[in-house]
Amino acid sequence: MDIVEPTLILDETRCRNNISFMVSKARELQLLLRPHFKTHQSLAIGRWFREAGVRSITVSSVRMAQYFARDGWDDITIAIPFNIRETTRLNELAKQAQVQIIVLYPFMIDHLDAVLDNEVGFLIEIDNGYHRTGIHPQARDRIEEILEKEKTASHLSFRGFLTHAGNTYQAASEKEINCIHLQTTSIMKNLKAEFLGRYPDIIISLGDTPSCSLMHDFNGIDEIRPGNFVFYDLMQKQLGVCREEDIAVCLACPVISRDEEKRKIVVYGGAIHLSREYLDSRNGKIYGKVVLLEEQGWSESLEGTEVTGLSQEHGIIRMDNTAFNRIRIGDLIGILPVHSCLTANLMSSYLTLSGTRIDHLNSTR
Amino acid sequence: MDIVEPTLILDETRCRNNISFMVSKARELQLLLRPHFKTHQSLAIGRWFREAGVRSITVSSVRMAQYFARDGWDDITIAIPFNIRETTRLNELAKQAQVQIIVLYPFMIDHLDAVLDNEVGFLIEIDNGYHRTGIHPQARDRIEEILEKEKTASHLSFRGFLTHAGNTYQAASEKEINCIHLQTTSIMKNLKAEFLGRYPDIIISLGDTPSCSLMHDFNGIDEIRPGNFVFYDLMQKQLGVCREEDIAVCLACPVISRDEEKRKIVVYGGAIHLSREYLDSRNGKIYGKVVLLEEQGWSESLEGTEVTGLSQEHGIIRMDNTAFNRIRIGDLIGILPVHSCLTANLMSSYLTLSGTRIDHLNSTR
Repeated sequence: MDIVEPTLILDETRCRNNISFMVSKARELQLLLRPHFKTHQSLAIGRWFREAGVRSITVSSVRMAQYFARDGWDDITIAIPFNIRETTRLNELAKQAQVQIIVLYPFMIDHLDAVLDNEVGFLIEIDNGYHRTGIHPQARDRIEEILEKEKTASHLSFRGFLTHAGNTYQAASEKEINCIHLQTTSIMKNLKAEFLGRYPDIIISLGDTPSCSLMHDFNGIDEIRPGNFVFYDLMQKQLGVCREEDIAVCLACPVISRDEEKRKIVVYGGAIHLSREYLDSRNGKIYGKVVLLEEQGWSESLEGTEVTGLSQEHGIIRMDNTAFNRIRIGDLIGILPVHSCLTANLMSSYLTLSGTRIDHLNSTR
Repeated sequence: MDIVEPTLILDETRCRNNISFMVSKARELQLLLRPHFKTHQSLAIGRWFREAGVRSITVSSVRMAQYFARDGWDDITIAIPFNIRETTRLNELAKQAQVQIIVLYPFMIDHLDAVLDNEVGFLIEIDNGYHRTGIHPQARDRIEEILEKEKTASHLSFRGFLTHAGNTYQAASEKEINCIHLQTTSIMKNLKAEFLGRYPDIIISLGDTPSCSLMHDFNGIDEIRPGNFVFYDLMQKQLGVCREEDIAVCLACPVISRDEEKRKIVVYGGAIHLSREYLDSRNGKIYGKVVLLEEQGWSESLEGTEVTGLSQEHGIIRMDNTAFNRIRIGDLIGILPVHSCLTANLMSSYLTLSGTRIDHLNSTR
């Protein structure tokens, strides 16, 4: 490959397989798949989803929603508590697309209704134990207050309840993910049952990549919003959510230093390429696993070979003997990222195995 | 301030003061200040250095060198072991500017000499205990091998020895930084003494932000290359290298959630804005400290108020009561970054207190 600097390689086949897997699963379970596009942030990859039949998406900022709206996406949920400083942008966006936002506070309904010219849907976020954002499922007063405000609002309509079980990322096993999933779905189903009489069209939306990849019972749920599955990564692999051969991105890095004595190599590729996300291991922090780049992709990760240190542009890799002996200065090696969302966000473009450059929202700054 | 989304605020006065401090110190100690521009990566901030009399710079990639060369910088050291995949780019760059690279391997001299049309200087990097890259100071054979190759090279000339005492970042106290500094300078001075007879013009280049900010004895050293001091950050403050009032950047973030019961707020501003760099504290990881934004800058950091969790776009902040009671949904709060280089790299632009947008290399992708 004619690569001179750290470059994020994308295996289109693996990526499309990951998309197909989730599309098929959602179809079987009769769920609306509203994939979270914050992982790839790419119009080109968005089109692969569209080719697979996806019409509704999730994003994590108004700016990201605008990016995809310009490419024809017209059903977008912005899955972060709405930032009232972006009300003007939201109003613009709502002209182009059907938008859903998250509302956590009754005052926000009045505030938005006074400004919006177009209809915007809203979901109430429920905190099921992840404790990031969302209303406690027992805080019915607050939910009712929001719904009371909605009654007189002309431009806001209640679409249902949303939750994000981000605590599955801290789970130690599939059993634990299952346990979180059961608890989450049960709370959400109860909520729906309670409000369905008054709001017959409301939906329940949930689904992080671990639950959506591994779980099978989504009874009573209407919509799932996984994101990371499009690429997967070492964190998901460690959780047991994917196999290594499902990971669809890898950072190609030139070898710039090789220490015979310490069996250590250093690559051009550091914290500003991979991010400082790490996995804990018996031997300390791991910032990535090393693969060999091949014509049609990359090898399995090399035994005993890990990125153990990062500075701004340097990656430090300890290797076992066999691996070390194969590496020369100027070689390209591949690094499987710990957290593909952050790596993609830093790299801000992709190169497919066939040599096509692919866009990322950040490349448009 | 009319800010709608996470925005990196730059206090120009503090930044220019940090620049003046280091310029004056270098002048007093008769050192060439060759600041590392990887921290700010900005042409505008580069010009502030130029106004303060700086003419020579350090960068961490060929791409970064090209960026600054286009703005008239013509004496640039690329302080990362040279990546031979960028030889063509280097050749282009050497037409515009006097460039120094780092060479660690004898073969590289032949390799480069066969390709280069213009003269390029090189420094030999010495590993003084940081163990990232560099040649062991006792490995004289390898140094001599490189110098032997240089004798017959037409486009490469030996400029001296360079080292980076990155281990000062792990130091527990000023005493320990002093100890590392003494050891580093002593090894480098010995090297110079040994080679000065044969190479009368060679220099010794060293200097990370902790040593350059705190140390006073640079006897025998020719050049210093600190970078982070232009902004400083919480990591430097924790090391005792700067005061909080020297920190020149702060991330403005809109408040999107407020949890009365847990005294917790959530801001729009997460790992893709701050980076996942953290400090360890008794209460766990800290990803930033919180300040209140004011007309002319920002307040001191609030007692007992820290960013304790980050997801892609969310920042989770635990507050003490007084601070919590002042914050409303939609407010902007400021976050002092743990590692300003990584935050600036992610944000890819700055907004000064007077409202001027300032460039960053990444905004040109």
